Amino acid sequence: MLERELKTSSRTDFVDATGLVQAVVDELEITDGVVVVFNPHTTAAVTINEGADPDVVRDMSVALDRIVPWQDDYHHAEGNAAAHIKASMFGSSVTVIVQDGRLQLGTWQKIWFCEFDGPRRRRLWVRSLTSGE
Amino acid sequence: MLERELKTSSRTDFVDATGLVQAVVDELEITDGVVVVFNPHTTAAVTINEGADPDVVRDMSVALDRIVPWQDDYHHAEGNAAAHIKASMFGSSVTVIVQDGRLQLGTWQKIWFCEFDGPRRRRLWVRSLTSGE
Amino acid sequence: MLERELKTSSRTDFVDATGLVQAVVDELEITDGVVVVFNPHTTAAVTINEGADPDVVRDMSVALDRIVPWQDDYHHAEGNAAAHIKASMFGSSVTVIVQDGRLQLGTWQKIWFCEFDGPRRRRLWVRSLTSGE
Repeated sequence: MLERELKTSSRTDFVDATGLVQAVVDELEITDGVVVVFNPHTTAAVTINEGADPDVVRDMSVALDRIVPWQDDYHHAEGNAAAHIKASMFGSSVTVIVQDGRLQLGTWQKIWFCEFDGPRRRRLWVRSLTSGE
Repeated sequence: MLERELKTSSRTDFVDATGLVQAVVDELEITDGVVVVFNPHTTAAVTINEGADPDVVRDMSVALDRIVPWQDDYHHAEGNAAAHIKASMFGSSVTVIVQDGRLQLGTWQKIWFCEFDGPRRRRLWVRSLTSGE
Repeated sequence: MLERELKTSSRTDFVDATGLVQAVVDELEITDGVVVVFNPHTTAAVTINEGADPDVVRDMSVALDRIVPWQDDYHHAEGNAAAHIKASMFGSSVTVIVQDGRLQLGTWQKIWFCEFDGPRRRRLWVRSLTSGE
């Protein structure tokens, strides 16, 4: 497992982590297998979605704020209950196939680190699995 | 990794991909391990849910349209921002255990390809992992 | 693959399954790899989120009831359509890295079995993968 750091810039922020994960694949010299990209934080997530138009993640951020409003009848006293709920809706990890040393993603797909309670310094853990076919 | 094609029939459509994935397990002669079923599209997803009553995926489709309406204050100009958001809510892949050559699913579980911006021709990638126990 | 049983106590219930999964890691003597924690039920899910303050899962439960109300224009006749929809929003499995025989989770993270249509007896399947690095 390798750990990488990243920085988020706003309360909700989507950071393209594709290059960071590909660099780990390069460093571990994985030619064929799968990588698990795991986010160890409870108010953040990892997802795969479009990277070409920045409005896609902007729309996602606005929609999530409507679906899970910051202010509601929450009991968790830290003011970030909404961020915890979004984290579970998007999920703590993604699994990506590697072939010929390259992450296998669709034409428009990027791996996004999803910050729901930033800005903060965050970590991402990457573990490879190389058996099977 | 094997790629399979499938066709969706409407704007939102849930296609049972369980047979397709089991056929890949058969072809790769995996007796014991795990398969990662990965959707390479940004307006589609993969999920595991009930297959016995078709009303379950029908209700899911209607509920998602209410939670993430097609028309909203979206900036993404292609008219399918809602489909992108649903894709991240449901996730880009599922991981299923294989034992004695069979996908291990609960009694009512099926693997569903979730189309959120169809109808289209779509692809599904399947990768096995065979170490461990 | 090992199967474990657990009991849920209310209609919506979050049960901390971290100890149960660590016990499987111990029993299988996995020192290094990944575990897939799979829920074989269609009205339940598995997620990773905060375990320190019980209000976090309480808030999650209340928020999900607002996002996916129990009563709506559902066609599925069993009265638990909402539970099926929540199951797909949270996902059927989580993947966790293991190092030196320990589940690698962030400081505040726990593995939660999410009951959306209880109380019931439920099962959880755990499969390890040990190749790669």
